[in-house]
Amino acid sequence: MDIKDYLEQKRIEVDRFLDAVAPRADTPPTTLHESMRYSLMAGGKRVRPILAIAAAESVCAATPPGIMAVACSLELIHTYSLIHDDLPSMDNDDFRRGKPTNHKVYGEAMAILAGDALLTMAFDWCSRPDLMKGCEPQRQVRLIQELAYGSGNVGMVGGQVFDIQAENKDIDLPTLQNIHKHKTGMLIRAAVRMGAIAAGATDRQLDDLTGYAEDIGLAFQIADDVLNVTGTREELGKNPNTDAERGKKTYPAFYGVEGARKLADDCVTRAIARLASFGPSADPLRKLAWYITARKN
Amino acid sequence: MDIKDYLEQKRIEVDRFLDAVAPRADTPPTTLHESMRYSLMAGGKRVRPILAIAAAESVCAATPPGIMAVACSLELIHTYSLIHDDLPSMDNDDFRRGKPTNHKVYGEAMAILAGDALLTMAFDWCSRPDLMKGCEPQRQVRLIQELAYGSGNVGMVGGQVFDIQAENKDIDLPTLQNIHKHKTGMLIRAAVRMGAIAAGATDRQLDDLTGYAEDIGLAFQIADDVLNVTGTREELGKNPNTDAERGKKTYPAFYGVEGARKLADDCVTRAIARLASFGPSADPLRKLAWYITARKN
Repeated sequence: MDIKDYLEQKRIEVDRFLDAVAPRADTPPTTLHESMRYSLMAGGKRVRPILAIAAAESVCAATPPGIMAVACSLELIHTYSLIHDDLPSMDNDDFRRGKPTNHKVYGEAMAILAGDALLTMAFDWCSRPDLMKGCEPQRQVRLIQELAYGSGNVGMVGGQVFDIQAENKDIDLPTLQNIHKHKTGMLIRAAVRMGAIAAGATDRQLDDLTGYAEDIGLAFQIADDVLNVTGTREELGKNPNTDAERGKKTYPAFYGVEGARKLADDCVTRAIARLASFGPSADPLRKLAWYITARKN
Repeated sequence: MDIKDYLEQKRIEVDRFLDAVAPRADTPPTTLHESMRYSLMAGGKRVRPILAIAAAESVCAATPPGIMAVACSLELIHTYSLIHDDLPSMDNDDFRRGKPTNHKVYGEAMAILAGDALLTMAFDWCSRPDLMKGCEPQRQVRLIQELAYGSGNVGMVGGQVFDIQAENKDIDLPTLQNIHKHKTGMLIRAAVRMGAIAAGATDRQLDDLTGYAEDIGLAFQIADDVLNVTGTREELGKNPNTDAERGKKTYPAFYGVEGARKLADDCVTRAIARLASFGPSADPLRKLAWYITARKN
């Protein structure tokens, strides 16, 4: 299998689901729905939903009931976090994925509310009878618990707080690692675990996949830091080197660009080793791990 | 039973649960948890949790498993909505419940994140195995669905959007009603329905209680509008008459203060009529309906 084809095919499926299930911009409140869709359909790579789908496939060949809703709920969370992070009182970014940020188009109030609505909708989708048909209720509750835990105060939101508190401070490496473990790592961990749980993973499988997720989460963040230094405006869809300008400490700042790349590669190697007990069904996860660090740099 | 004693007793129970289960301010991220607690423990009347508890009691004498987590998740949603509503880009309020608003104390970024974390925590609590022990998973999923539906894009958040869009516009009565139906009504509806569902209500009981909730939701909003005109700074915990200053249309603007009071009373009478098939177990709900419109005016 070719990972680019795989990613492209899954991305299309995810986009199709999001477009079909997200509230239409011609139903009220229309501006809210338009604003939600503006960011949701802005052409993300859909890494988190694809990780969830690939994790499910690694566990079970049959498509688990509700997997698309579960996978896409992660993209709703990711999208809301980008909208809120871009706000003037947070990172104050004007561009995202090559387009003006949500608040630049719809104003701050609507951007805050669009984020709130996307966040809430993630839990709506995971609990909707039509979208989750056939999924055991006990499993469904567990999926919702994973999503809440990974995205909340001790997960992604917590990471955002650690990040804000570290700005313009001379932080050490453990502090940087703690930021990323939460800010990016916990939702990626949730994505892989949710896919696995939806597919009925054994405890052992879930442990292995959790280890995999933690390693690629770190690799993903390091690669992102490197890209922020080395990428062009076209590649990034926003201005490069914004981290350094804001006085944010990054992996390249600690290890240099080459050192950071090496570190990301080590994480990927470790991640793949975690999948030793899985057969070819885990090939997408293996290739995804490499793809994540190789993207655009 | 005396409704004031009842409310006081339930309020204490809710406060105790919130205080015990909300993350401690000495666990990281400490500032986030402090900020969440600042607004959560600011002395609200806990109307939504109490409605959920009273609705459960009206259906079943035994305490349903998980009812406190379910009830308090509604207060988490309510509190997050207040924090976000008070932000400079939204209502720009400096005081809430007699204290400086969250962003005044912790800054805008932290206030946005505290809101996000409280919202997420509502779904965490409703899906946590320890807090929901003994609740059937199928019922749990249904409760989560009610919470998401009532607080999201076609619920409370949608209402906030309708409200923003109506500011400084000469809106008609149906538009005003649509704002309130969503902004306050949908979460109150969710509160009553969630209490009823947790207690195993029949379809008929759930229908009756839903009607009750819709009527008191409207009464509640009218009373709030009246209070905004007639209340003092001490009673309100914030400056009075802010609605008129902002050019917000309210029920007193359409009906006058006395006309609005009469309308609220009619709603309460209708709400109580919905409970005709319930025995004395629904007395707290009946008295609550009157109490809601009588508060401080």
